[in-house]
Amino acid sequence: MLTDTVIHKASGALHQPVTDEGRALLDLVDEHLPAVRAGAAEHDRAGTLPAEVIEAYGRNGVLGGTVPAELGGVGVRSLYDVAVVLSRIAEADASTALVLHAQFSRGLTFQYEWKHGSPAASELAARVLKLMAAGDPVCGGVKDHHSGVTTLTPDGSGGWLLNGRKTLVTMAQVARHVIVSAETRVDGEPHRLAAPVLARDTPGMTVLDNWDGLGMRASGTVDIVFENCRLPDENVLLRGVVGARSDVGLAGQTVSSCTNLGVYVGIAQAARDIAVAAVARRRGTPAAAVRTLVAEIDTRLYALRATVGSALSNADIANVDLSGDLAERGRLMMLPFQYAKQHANKVVPEIVGDCVTLVGGASYTAAHPLARLYRDARAGSFMQPYTYPDGVDYLSAQALGLDHDSNYMNVRAARSAEATR
Amino acid sequence: MLTDTVIHKASGALHQPVTDEGRALLDLVDEHLPAVRAGAAEHDRAGTLPAEVIEAYGRNGVLGGTVPAELGGVGVRSLYDVAVVLSRIAEADASTALVLHAQFSRGLTFQYEWKHGSPAASELAARVLKLMAAGDPVCGGVKDHHSGVTTLTPDGSGGWLLNGRKTLVTMAQVARHVIVSAETRVDGEPHRLAAPVLARDTPGMTVLDNWDGLGMRASGTVDIVFENCRLPDENVLLRGVVGARSDVGLAGQTVSSCTNLGVYVGIAQAARDIAVAAVARRRGTPAAAVRTLVAEIDTRLYALRATVGSALSNADIANVDLSGDLAERGRLMMLPFQYAKQHANKVVPEIVGDCVTLVGGASYTAAHPLARLYRDARAGSFMQPYTYPDGVDYLSAQALGLDHDSNYMNVRAARSAEATR
Amino acid sequence: MLTDTVIHKASGALHQPVTDEGRALLDLVDEHLPAVRAGAAEHDRAGTLPAEVIEAYGRNGVLGGTVPAELGGVGVRSLYDVAVVLSRIAEADASTALVLHAQFSRGLTFQYEWKHGSPAASELAARVLKLMAAGDPVCGGVKDHHSGVTTLTPDGSGGWLLNGRKTLVTMAQVARHVIVSAETRVDGEPHRLAAPVLARDTPGMTVLDNWDGLGMRASGTVDIVFENCRLPDENVLLRGVVGARSDVGLAGQTVSSCTNLGVYVGIAQAARDIAVAAVARRRGTPAAAVRTLVAEIDTRLYALRATVGSALSNADIANVDLSGDLAERGRLMMLPFQYAKQHANKVVPEIVGDCVTLVGGASYTAAHPLARLYRDARAGSFMQPYTYPDGVDYLSAQALGLDHDSNYMNVRAARSAEATR
Amino acid sequence: MLTDTVIHKASGALHQPVTDEGRALLDLVDEHLPAVRAGAAEHDRAGTLPAEVIEAYGRNGVLGGTVPAELGGVGVRSLYDVAVVLSRIAEADASTALVLHAQFSRGLTFQYEWKHGSPAASELAARVLKLMAAGDPVCGGVKDHHSGVTTLTPDGSGGWLLNGRKTLVTMAQVARHVIVSAETRVDGEPHRLAAPVLARDTPGMTVLDNWDGLGMRASGTVDIVFENCRLPDENVLLRGVVGARSDVGLAGQTVSSCTNLGVYVGIAQAARDIAVAAVARRRGTPAAAVRTLVAEIDTRLYALRATVGSALSNADIANVDLSGDLAERGRLMMLPFQYAKQHANKVVPEIVGDCVTLVGGASYTAAHPLARLYRDARAGSFMQPYTYPDGVDYLSAQALGLDHDSNYMNVRAARSAEATR
Repeated sequence: MLTDTVIHKASGALHQPVTDEGRALLDLVDEHLPAVRAGAAEHDRAGTLPAEVIEAYGRNGVLGGTVPAELGGVGVRSLYDVAVVLSRIAEADASTALVLHAQFSRGLTFQYEWKHGSPAASELAARVLKLMAAGDPVCGGVKDHHSGVTTLTPDGSGGWLLNGRKTLVTMAQVARHVIVSAETRVDGEPHRLAAPVLARDTPGMTVLDNWDGLGMRASGTVDIVFENCRLPDENVLLRGVVGARSDVGLAGQTVSSCTNLGVYVGIAQAARDIAVAAVARRRGTPAAAVRTLVAEIDTRLYALRATVGSALSNADIANVDLSGDLAERGRLMMLPFQYAKQHANKVVPEIVGDCVTLVGGASYTAAHPLARLYRDARAGSFMQPYTYPDGVDYLSAQALGLDHDSNYMNVRAARSAEATR
Repeated sequence: MLTDTVIHKASGALHQPVTDEGRALLDLVDEHLPAVRAGAAEHDRAGTLPAEVIEAYGRNGVLGGTVPAELGGVGVRSLYDVAVVLSRIAEADASTALVLHAQFSRGLTFQYEWKHGSPAASELAARVLKLMAAGDPVCGGVKDHHSGVTTLTPDGSGGWLLNGRKTLVTMAQVARHVIVSAETRVDGEPHRLAAPVLARDTPGMTVLDNWDGLGMRASGTVDIVFENCRLPDENVLLRGVVGARSDVGLAGQTVSSCTNLGVYVGIAQAARDIAVAAVARRRGTPAAAVRTLVAEIDTRLYALRATVGSALSNADIANVDLSGDLAERGRLMMLPFQYAKQHANKVVPEIVGDCVTLVGGASYTAAHPLARLYRDARAGSFMQPYTYPDGVDYLSAQALGLDHDSNYMNVRAARSAEATR
Repeated sequence: MLTDTVIHKASGALHQPVTDEGRALLDLVDEHLPAVRAGAAEHDRAGTLPAEVIEAYGRNGVLGGTVPAELGGVGVRSLYDVAVVLSRIAEADASTALVLHAQFSRGLTFQYEWKHGSPAASELAARVLKLMAAGDPVCGGVKDHHSGVTTLTPDGSGGWLLNGRKTLVTMAQVARHVIVSAETRVDGEPHRLAAPVLARDTPGMTVLDNWDGLGMRASGTVDIVFENCRLPDENVLLRGVVGARSDVGLAGQTVSSCTNLGVYVGIAQAARDIAVAAVARRRGTPAAAVRTLVAEIDTRLYALRATVGSALSNADIANVDLSGDLAERGRLMMLPFQYAKQHANKVVPEIVGDCVTLVGGASYTAAHPLARLYRDARAGSFMQPYTYPDGVDYLSAQALGLDHDSNYMNVRAARSAEATR
Repeated sequence: MLTDTVIHKASGALHQPVTDEGRALLDLVDEHLPAVRAGAAEHDRAGTLPAEVIEAYGRNGVLGGTVPAELGGVGVRSLYDVAVVLSRIAEADASTALVLHAQFSRGLTFQYEWKHGSPAASELAARVLKLMAAGDPVCGGVKDHHSGVTTLTPDGSGGWLLNGRKTLVTMAQVARHVIVSAETRVDGEPHRLAAPVLARDTPGMTVLDNWDGLGMRASGTVDIVFENCRLPDENVLLRGVVGARSDVGLAGQTVSSCTNLGVYVGIAQAARDIAVAAVARRRGTPAAAVRTLVAEIDTRLYALRATVGSALSNADIANVDLSGDLAERGRLMMLPFQYAKQHANKVVPEIVGDCVTLVGGASYTAAHPLARLYRDARAGSFMQPYTYPDGVDYLSAQALGLDHDSNYMNVRAARSAEATR
């Protein structure tokens, strides 16, 4: 049998970080992985977020993993490395990995604002990044509740009033700060996309306790309601006009979401390891179908790692190169990401399903780790930015040269604008 | 629509060589690609090898692509780069790519003998490599005809007599030199694996004209019969004893065969380009299933490139590192190769099949390029080293720690020894 | 849009019962389907068996659905019709269908004993069947707990003592009578397979409350422990000697399990209806991938119904024909059943998975009907008789003429005999 | 190993005809099956239609298989039975089965005209049917060449002039009569769909010799050019107005094409039998993947037979029932047919591909029966009425209640009308 070392070296991509900062972050993460693993079953059963682990990761610096060193963080910039780290956490507990993805993702996007944003944006980003480095969990809300658009209106004294409801906000229950996407509503001006930052104790803000997922049950993915929350202008990042089509924003959307694929690589790896261990424990010659399934699982796992790893490398290369056409940079990042996402969304549930077949009836109980992975794996299709149908529209438009707005946040904003007209 | 440049940069691995020598070889290959493309249909129809193209590639140095620069060649060492070059040729004609794979493969394995072999092996390798650099096609015969094992017996005067029949020897019809695998038969000594090198005009050697493939029809993949062919001892590379199980040889087997995956990447890419172009030419909105198929094809093509590219990178890294355990090096190279081969053998025919669906009835004629690709694509399962069933045995044995001889040449030799007992 | 009638007539098999008794049973089932549907979510959440529904079905005669009319039952004999009825129940709640499958299955196998068994067997069967017709739930335990074989030993006074533990006994919590498979242990005699029947209040019998499944959570599938349970000889059906290979028993095993496929047809249908309704409610043109998925789902559902329907018809035809070779009859029943089971086990989770993709994130909550179906669907692989690997062994042995004992109960008994030697 | 009888009884649908006429036709077909089988390889290589076999089938009555007994034919009416017969022929040679499908299909549609058409249509139908019963091959041309629509214009003396070009007309090379779809062009009147019948020696009609398919090479599927072909009015069947949407015509389109699925069932069966025989001949224990593939192939073959058999039974039942709404009857026939066609088009190439994997490199020669089946299998997607994309549009429209014209001939006519405007 191959030693673990050999398998890890040989088995495709996403096994080891490629930067020193990535390795440092992985070491910090490792410190509490036993606790993550130990609590996974109970948090899954109860549907509770492992607040104690998140706190511990705040204390040892993990929550500042993607905060630049100059601002007190670990300084990981490589998307690839973040995905490696997330895959390791997901092998222990996918929900915890999803929570940390939310944190790392904020750090990665604020890195960009800090370095390349306007002075106001850079200052706001620095403030948030320092809080993250100090151990504050920060969550982000993208998706509006079906009841309407989340809006910012002038408060009459230079600030803003935030109203609306965000849904499916991972980690909201423990976050000390919240960043949401919203649209401005200013008389006589076009609607703009904006990203206000709020402290958890902002009056008018209510974090609901309404998560009861099929899987990812420990991710605390709840709704947040905003009722006339008052914000100073310096806490709002202003972005483009709603409806102005541009592919520049695809870069930021890729950065924000692509490392999430590491979570699903970790799920597949964990399922595979459980199944192979179970089969190897059995006496006698493995049945024909068992050997075939094991070979098929390992083949797909290798292809999954290679595909996700390749997309993240593509994104890393394009991400740091601001010298050319920024719209083209956006496309160069989003396209491989979406290929890899479509691939992962299809193959991860298949791998986990075949692992259930290998382990047999013993895995068909609510508390079995493989049953948890079976439920967690299915969340992949609902991750940002594209669902399967949206992904098909996007990819086929790219291939065939069809007219298509690739910026999904823009499309959503335009859709809701139309719906409310 | 994305510019070609953008797609090439973004669309996963295996688009550009990574070494200067690789880029140089690709440039030389490009010189005659229009001729390759122009002759593909007719050579496919007639089942003839494009001898004129091979000659031209002999004159411009392509046949010495993997010969070290010190011996007059282009000096490509990267397996990844060889696969990139082969994929480009396969986009024009897969049979020609298969022929050149045979040549490049000989160069890659003889590089190793030249540098790391015994003095006798090194001298023989240098001789062959110089001939290749000078434009001689050299083919290799691995598989014995079912009539028996190919053997070397002492000729009584310090040389050897070669007898037997090799089957499915690609490029044999134009090769000026032939290297085959054989077993020694010396009284009182164990059988050994050996690789004799013969000139085309060796008395007793007959190249048959018996290729009429479903696909790869222009690859000249015929049988060679050896009847008491006399060879001097210095033309025979001696290898290990038959039945001595070792994973050291997996490295050489990987080097010899893994770049072949580039051929199938090229087939998939060519099919995709034909289908997307056909769909894009049509008026009106594409049908729902057309958009879905296009997105699925591009997603699988990206994953294919990433997976094959990853395996070749893994092999390149391990290939140059002779510092550690050589058996482990062998496993490190063969395992990813086989994952990628199983993946490619499954997905390439699927991609081509979906392209046929997109193009429709027009592609269902013998002479349509897509019909040729449909037939060529199916050859992948029959490439060395493992068939699908052998691959399942190998991969499941690796995962489950089962007893298994991974050296397929050794297994074959042992099998035939048993059969003739 | 097609009217429901048209779709039902056209959409393949398993839509309507083919016998009058089948139609009568379906009418009785319909009486409480609203209650089944209404309680499904809560019983799933709590993991409780819907005892009130089972009682109601006892009162209105459903529990005697497969009891011959002469003994007071509805008299359904057609396996096909039982599957139709189960699929309808499963559309409302799969767990309830699984529970009723256990009941109907007992009736079907006891019908045979009553008509064709020895006088003692016939008498016992008649007694049990009358109880079922009167509304008693009767469950059956096949699988031994890993702690050992369930055995019958002589009690010294003409009766038997039952010891052991059965696992995964559906409906055990409400059953008034239990039939289990066991092996006799009599000094100087070979071990025999036997089926003792016990009343629920038999001293020494304990029904555990240990079910917490990933799905099928309302099926009350628990363990039963037997400690020196005393039975009169007339309550034991004696079958063949352990290890005597025969295909005659395949008929009874098919009868006992094949109607279960109806449960999974119902699951697929329910998922499809939820997804199509959700998509049809949306405004605007459906996305390309949505149309493609809908067409693929309906195509697979049609093929599923046709395949399962065909296997049940095959079984019905062979089941009533006792004129020929009974071993051949056994094979004629089991082979199509197993083809259909392998097909259903693969395709039902795929259909439900694609329905989740269509409905989107809304279905990814613990309480969503589609999330329940996603979990329930996966139980199919664990149903009797063959798992996927055992099915592959069985089917490939049939095709290739390999030596193989097709009687899975015999194989299990032989395995445990060997393990304890 | 199961006896052949057992497998045939057990293995799903489409093994035996269900009517006496079907059995009689199968007996007649059997008379020349050895000749069909013997000539298959050579006709495939040369791309020639087996004229001698078609003649023999003319002499022994097979060409009148679907002609009513009253008009001298065998009188098969069951679509199911025609498919059984075609599957048997396809096991020997798929091209020959495709040719006979063209003949049987004409008989089936003319049966309807004879019984239910207008007096003029009935008379024309009777004339053609009697010729078929006497041994005349009759072919039908549906698809227009891309150069334009095939039209009928008044010839000024009560007859018509036919102009245009039909493409992909199976069996045209030996047909003595030709029936094509055309549109009338009469000043001041709307365009109508029409079906003129021409004798082979009609002046102005030229049958090209332009077939060189990837597969189905012996089907003589060529183009026919019509230049001012003069026809009497009684040789023209007049149908509906172009653009008048109605589902009534779906019945005739189903009758005309659905039995064709039998050809692909035969292809899958033949490939399976070759592969299983090859594997069974080998010494030693089959490899794990071999057993798995064999089980998967047999499972899919069972599901294929059941699905196709079910659709044909559905069609047979609706076909003979003219008592209700004829549009609903059309839908009831087309919907299951299309489900089965989508299923078969996907699964038959998969089965054949896996058989190639089982047999190995030996099957990768142009002349191997499995290589022929690999090429033939792919024709399924191009059979009438719907391609895969059109099928997705049709099925999703049915499920979702979308606006859609299901009559593909109407749609084509409307499309070309638009294109030429």
